[in-house]
Amino acid sequence: MSETTMTLDEIHKLAKETLMAHGCDAENAGAVADTITRAEGDGCHSHGLMRLPGYVATLKSGKVNGKARPSVKKLAPAVVQVNGHNCFAPMALNEGRAHLIDAAKTCGIAAMPLIGIHHFAALWAEVEPIADAGLIGFACTSYKPAVIPAGGTKALYGTNPICFGWPRPGKPSMVFDQASSVMARGEVMLAAREGHTLPEGVGVDADGNPTTDPDEVLKGALLAFGGYKGSSIAMMVELLAGGLIGESFSFEAAQRDNGDGGPPQGGEFMMAMDPNLFGDADGWADHADAFFDKMLEQDNVRLPGARRHKNRGETAKTGVAVSNIILDKISAL
Amino acid sequence: MSETTMTLDEIHKLAKETLMAHGCDAENAGAVADTITRAEGDGCHSHGLMRLPGYVATLKSGKVNGKARPSVKKLAPAVVQVNGHNCFAPMALNEGRAHLIDAAKTCGIAAMPLIGIHHFAALWAEVEPIADAGLIGFACTSYKPAVIPAGGTKALYGTNPICFGWPRPGKPSMVFDQASSVMARGEVMLAAREGHTLPEGVGVDADGNPTTDPDEVLKGALLAFGGYKGSSIAMMVELLAGGLIGESFSFEAAQRDNGDGGPPQGGEFMMAMDPNLFGDADGWADHADAFFDKMLEQDNVRLPGARRHKNRGETAKTGVAVSNIILDKISAL
Repeated sequence: MSETTMTLDEIHKLAKETLMAHGCDAENAGAVADTITRAEGDGCHSHGLMRLPGYVATLKSGKVNGKARPSVKKLAPAVVQVNGHNCFAPMALNEGRAHLIDAAKTCGIAAMPLIGIHHFAALWAEVEPIADAGLIGFACTSYKPAVIPAGGTKALYGTNPICFGWPRPGKPSMVFDQASSVMARGEVMLAAREGHTLPEGVGVDADGNPTTDPDEVLKGALLAFGGYKGSSIAMMVELLAGGLIGESFSFEAAQRDNGDGGPPQGGEFMMAMDPNLFGDADGWADHADAFFDKMLEQDNVRLPGARRHKNRGETAKTGVAVSNIILDKISAL
Repeated sequence: MSETTMTLDEIHKLAKETLMAHGCDAENAGAVADTITRAEGDGCHSHGLMRLPGYVATLKSGKVNGKARPSVKKLAPAVVQVNGHNCFAPMALNEGRAHLIDAAKTCGIAAMPLIGIHHFAALWAEVEPIADAGLIGFACTSYKPAVIPAGGTKALYGTNPICFGWPRPGKPSMVFDQASSVMARGEVMLAAREGHTLPEGVGVDADGNPTTDPDEVLKGALLAFGGYKGSSIAMMVELLAGGLIGESFSFEAAQRDNGDGGPPQGGEFMMAMDPNLFGDADGWADHADAFFDKMLEQDNVRLPGARRHKNRGETAKTGVAVSNIILDKISAL
């Protein structure tokens, strides 16, 4: 597959200029370009430039407001609501982050419901800044139906990722980010784009039959990871990022979506905790590090996110190989 | 297998009197007996009378204080710490619950770290009262190493259950409670006791070889559900119920334990949120019910916990069939 090596600055510039050419102001475009660039830099190509045509589609259709100014409202001492007014999620997160951190440092734990946003990004890029600020972070979001509830035959849940971050003062934060499906939809899209087949047990076709063809799975549905247990987690995400905060469930988001190929309007749930306010202010960081050391005593056990940090160190020097198919799609926009 | 049918009152009386005969005062014994009775009544026998000999072992060895008076301390506006002073977990939960609910209703979200407790019970019995009080509840706890981290060969994580509860005013709360292992250790213990084999992929023997013999798995280790994703969740539980709150990780709890066969000292993490303070006070309950209805439109999809509620209705009338092997062990105490 033919590829072009780009520096991270070039990726950021391409993303930002493309978004601005289609109706974003500099601040909205910059927020999304930051997220895309971080994904490419960390080796998470399924959330990188590959998503840019989808972002642009939502600007062209008028579904997303590329000049939105999100508003922040304190609903309770430990609940900070961000209304994106139809912006892309990274813009709303930039607006709310400091308020969430403040509330968590005051109350010990705080939540940030995000409504009226369009989410298309990787959660780890959103939780990592919370952890880097010294807090424990959690986020989850729904999308459009892609995953079958345990026992059923039809997609109802989004791939519904959850993300958890743990601060490690002086070291890279530990952040894991995982879809509630066996495989993330972005990975299936990447396999389809690159012509790979999927492992068994990832998904079914439109008739509910098991298949390893990524194009068929994209028309059909994914299975939750770990059977009914992953299905319960996907359901929990629907309730937190939809029912609790007054936003759409995945099935409602799909019903309301205009089908432009970009992210529907939806919600996100974030949470932060200050580990200095949980009873072991002096000990928690070293105590957890001793636990991580214990994990790493076993061969082949890795800290979640370790590969991302390794990629990050390398791509900062070497740049990123970007598929020319994707670059062609972007220049055609 | 020979069984004796007992009413729920008889189960409660047997549990309470047995605990009081071995050093519990009425309040501590009652808290544990409530939990055991609810487990039996809901058909969750692996957390019922079967656990009583383990509880008694810890009283006999002096590891648990059957007359403890847990103390409550507010660490921040939304963080309520309960120190059990070596009590059984249900006693500490009874002490802290109202404080957690108050903090969540004031702040919107609140956490309750529990330290110095001995946890041997089912989490759903702890989260259900939070949901029945109109709040969203979450709990998790670690134990002793039983689960292999993804990529590794040796048990490091406890079975580390997580539990999530959603209030449904006028209807039974929706509560799911699931071990981070493929199968709960209690279920493996039950299979061993009843002479059943386990499904493939549940665990390994002491040498790390796959086996379906529950006795061998109890000497070896369990696998996390859904591969590395379940393993990440088990790790998160270690951090929340141990590292964050200044309590033991599972591996530390095992090192410090006296091996009497009962639950080690450990921690638990609980959380509650008031759905009336997240931006959709008037709509959230009906909105979520419409989502549950959508789930149930699919044949064979069930709400988590539905079987427990069904069992509860039946056992209140018919009583519970209790294994005579367990009853013999209890009378031998």
